[in-house]
Amino acid sequence: MSTYRMLTEQEAVEYARNIPDLFPANAKLTSREIGDGNLNFVFHIQDEISNKSIIFKQALPYARVVGESWPLTLDRARIESEALILQGELCPGFVPQVYHYDIEMALTVMEDLSAYEIMRKGLVARKYYPNFAKHIGTFLARTLFLTSDLALHPYEKKKRVASFSNPELCKITEDLVFTDPYYDAATNSFNPLIREQAEALWHDDAVKLEVAKLKEGFLTRTQALLHGDLHTGSIMATEEGTKVIDPEFAYYGPMGFDIGAVIANLVLNYVAQEGHASDVQERESYQAYLLDTITGIWTTFEAEFRTLWAEKAVEPSAAIPGYVDDYVRRLLQDTLGYAGCKTIRRIVGLAHVWDIESIEDPAVRAHSEKLALAIGRELILKRESISSVEDIADLISDTHIALSV
Amino acid sequence: MSTYRMLTEQEAVEYARNIPDLFPANAKLTSREIGDGNLNFVFHIQDEISNKSIIFKQALPYARVVGESWPLTLDRARIESEALILQGELCPGFVPQVYHYDIEMALTVMEDLSAYEIMRKGLVARKYYPNFAKHIGTFLARTLFLTSDLALHPYEKKKRVASFSNPELCKITEDLVFTDPYYDAATNSFNPLIREQAEALWHDDAVKLEVAKLKEGFLTRTQALLHGDLHTGSIMATEEGTKVIDPEFAYYGPMGFDIGAVIANLVLNYVAQEGHASDVQERESYQAYLLDTITGIWTTFEAEFRTLWAEKAVEPSAAIPGYVDDYVRRLLQDTLGYAGCKTIRRIVGLAHVWDIESIEDPAVRAHSEKLALAIGRELILKRESISSVEDIADLISDTHIALSV
Repeated sequence: MSTYRMLTEQEAVEYARNIPDLFPANAKLTSREIGDGNLNFVFHIQDEISNKSIIFKQALPYARVVGESWPLTLDRARIESEALILQGELCPGFVPQVYHYDIEMALTVMEDLSAYEIMRKGLVARKYYPNFAKHIGTFLARTLFLTSDLALHPYEKKKRVASFSNPELCKITEDLVFTDPYYDAATNSFNPLIREQAEALWHDDAVKLEVAKLKEGFLTRTQALLHGDLHTGSIMATEEGTKVIDPEFAYYGPMGFDIGAVIANLVLNYVAQEGHASDVQERESYQAYLLDTITGIWTTFEAEFRTLWAEKAVEPSAAIPGYVDDYVRRLLQDTLGYAGCKTIRRIVGLAHVWDIESIEDPAVRAHSEKLALAIGRELILKRESISSVEDIADLISDTHIALSV
Repeated sequence: MSTYRMLTEQEAVEYARNIPDLFPANAKLTSREIGDGNLNFVFHIQDEISNKSIIFKQALPYARVVGESWPLTLDRARIESEALILQGELCPGFVPQVYHYDIEMALTVMEDLSAYEIMRKGLVARKYYPNFAKHIGTFLARTLFLTSDLALHPYEKKKRVASFSNPELCKITEDLVFTDPYYDAATNSFNPLIREQAEALWHDDAVKLEVAKLKEGFLTRTQALLHGDLHTGSIMATEEGTKVIDPEFAYYGPMGFDIGAVIANLVLNYVAQEGHASDVQERESYQAYLLDTITGIWTTFEAEFRTLWAEKAVEPSAAIPGYVDDYVRRLLQDTLGYAGCKTIRRIVGLAHVWDIESIEDPAVRAHSEKLALAIGRELILKRESISSVEDIADLISDTHIALSV
């Protein structure tokens, strides 16, 4: 056990050399800090002889956001390491392998994914990921079902709820996703051209009531171990493979929050394509691909979730006729509600997404942003009347059409 | 700090003498074990000179139920002590005062309530408790609201969720309330004259589905710190006063579970009166009193809960128009669902209640038991169509009339 200190590039090399069986004895190690330094150090450490490389991720004791520095718990590194290890057991190959972790140093040593690209960047460039829907749908079904009361003895599940208690990072979500976007909070930022829409949101009691209920779910439902921040910047992809990274927000919460996060980020890319693609046909095919992906994610998720339910449930009530259907129906509705919240917060809240921010012309960007707000609102308000996956794509394209006429 | 050992009467006296400021220096202490020895030792310790008396409650490392001995965590004594102290702070005067507690010895030293009677006994004897509805409604509103996310900073609330993690005692409820009564479980016991009704329950998919959803809520919703076992055997009462005891099942769960438990036990007494009172008029007045009490509990609870919401909420979404109404409506429905489960488990499950067991004639008892099952079923199935407190009493008396014709 060590005492926490921030590593330098050279210290990272020394630390790596002392981890048994990580590099050959004759390794010639180089180290490069490749993170953005806002929350973590990320060192890329490579053996110039074997070319083998690994990643060191070290949590910093603060978060630098919009120029300010907030103290932030180092315990998030433990949570991230333990979540990665668990997710790797439940869904092998879909998260970076963890070689070593050090609670005191807030350090995780893991697989280097340099061959992969952050998915958000690929989506902005209109890349196609033919396996993504199947992969992420499977990842969601396995990590959520297999950490829930459906699949665990209640002693084990309650132990995990306590172990993954993550108050500080949950508070960030509670504020930035569910609270601040819905009033004139100092943390909000948005395109001045959509001020009218932002103000309308702050006075939209129907949406605010539903968001309050969704926040209540986030605060009080220990349904499964969530990734907790599953946007397309937390997913690395190639045409073949998918890796989910950065589960430092992991905690026991409502399953729909994770599924909704993925869907919201595809919706955000969908609306951003309005401002990116100059060729209408190219834009429309890519948007159709995004809608197919959303449908495919849910379809895969539901099929895999039902298979797990049939084969792996230990909770006796899982066998009761109709329960799985009722459960999946409620889960779809939660998913849409959280997808709506996660869409809206990226337009009027503190943290925005590159998909939309990379649209240079503010007027063009405003068009995408208004569309995102309209889809987010529909997802939140109509979620309880939606009972099949086809309705999601319809809801998105109908809102799109309605806003275009 | 001590090492756990079961106290003898004499050791309890020695222990009491060493607690500062509890008894005068010249106290002449006597000790008497007054518990039933199934789960705990309860020593009544009295100073013969000043007549001052106190209670020692020591958890035993096992539970003796139906002749068997199950190992059971001593941590329940810590949970009980801490819950009593917290409830005493949130709602002064409604729980026994804790003078001292010793985690290692699984011991709570508390106020002697010999002047009070276990309420279940009083109800069987058709005693009237004019303050009870107001007292318990207030106790429920204060202890539930003030331990929820509505009233606590999320860090504090999450800390309490972890501190009141109570897997072993929750498992007892999970099995005995939500699972075993709904199939032919070895733990079940019931009057042979209601076998037909028990078997009908085991094949009642509509009820079983709703009970599965209520169990899901019990397993996954950390809404507030519950008492966790709030039947009328956990309430001591006089005509004037009310004291809630024995919160060893305390944990963070759905608020409706506690409110429902109180209502269920009044329903059980209501149906038991069918077999107790020989005078029809006396029976009907007492049953009317019980229905008034149920209505009064909810009315007091709701008024007090809304006052706390208006005055003490720290959660920002509490201010959103319509949220309190929506919250209270869902809470009433949860309450009725849990009341239904808690009614049924006392008829076909492992643990029965004296109200009904004290009816000697099995045929007379069967009449009460069938009525309890019918009311429990209605509460579970109709809960979502009930939106006002008057509907509860109507549902009970309508079911009563329907079963009597």
